[in-house]
Amino acid sequence: MSHIAVIIDEWFEDSEYTEPVEAFKVAGHQVTHVGLEKGKTVRGKKKSTPVTVDVAAEKADPADYDALLIPGGYSPDKLRAHDAPVRFVRDFMESGKPVFSICHAPQILITADVLKGRRITGYKSIVQDIRNAGAHFENQEVVVDGNLISSRFPADLPAFIRASIAALV
Amino acid sequence: MSHIAVIIDEWFEDSEYTEPVEAFKVAGHQVTHVGLEKGKTVRGKKKSTPVTVDVAAEKADPADYDALLIPGGYSPDKLRAHDAPVRFVRDFMESGKPVFSICHAPQILITADVLKGRRITGYKSIVQDIRNAGAHFENQEVVVDGNLISSRFPADLPAFIRASIAALV
Repeated sequence: MSHIAVIIDEWFEDSEYTEPVEAFKVAGHQVTHVGLEKGKTVRGKKKSTPVTVDVAAEKADPADYDALLIPGGYSPDKLRAHDAPVRFVRDFMESGKPVFSICHAPQILITADVLKGRRITGYKSIVQDIRNAGAHFENQEVVVDGNLISSRFPADLPAFIRASIAALV
Repeated sequence: MSHIAVIIDEWFEDSEYTEPVEAFKVAGHQVTHVGLEKGKTVRGKKKSTPVTVDVAAEKADPADYDALLIPGGYSPDKLRAHDAPVRFVRDFMESGKPVFSICHAPQILITADVLKGRRITGYKSIVQDIRNAGAHFENQEVVVDGNLISSRFPADLPAFIRASIAALV
């Protein structure tokens, strides 16, 4: 069983959190929510799904986790305005452990400056940002480039979840 | 008196629309709302300020306006997922007429690929995107680079409005 960090703040895309996390739990994996402030409840932008932050990003250590899920929506934009979550994501990418990125999640990978030369997909509004960051954008339902697994939007969730589960030990 | 286009969609930052537009109107200028669909009512992300779109971006002609205001919030992210508003913004920048950009507004300028070598400011979450687009980010309340006038967030609104009004004929 794996221990998966989910980095999350307000206005995440509800299904991009609920569906992978449900699949991870059903498969016997453990999930911990990393955010800006321990104990804070954050909500999705559509259904107001409540999520309580378990660990503040500034206290989180990638060594404690086997994989990282970054849901989309406007959560990545909010997280990347702060140093600690950006550092956590950068350290996680550099660890080589699996990172699951969907929709607007590449935004925090861009701020962490970890996309040069990587193959990735993401939401259509951020394609130019992905390319300007030195990554190769691919318009596919799921792109697997080493440890980096990415999808575009909620309709890709089945493929995203299959690829993510397959990457867990 | 000038005719100002405001390009806008859902979840704009309320005050970055209401305060400049009020100032423009008090100064005797005319405002037209350009969006994704004529007649659609879009709302701000905080106070649900309703704004009705007057002209669809695909029908809008920069020649009809003297300046362009791009409010921030998540409106620029939503607009830049579509070709017509990106093209309208690109044509406007290339016309040399004043463009007023605040907060997340540089996102649509990035997708329009009009920032290479320009000096600009914007919200802290998008600094890396601005730099990756080839622009020079300046952490100032207002940056004036030729026709491009930019600010960071609502607290900069007084300086942003002063510089914008000064740029109108």
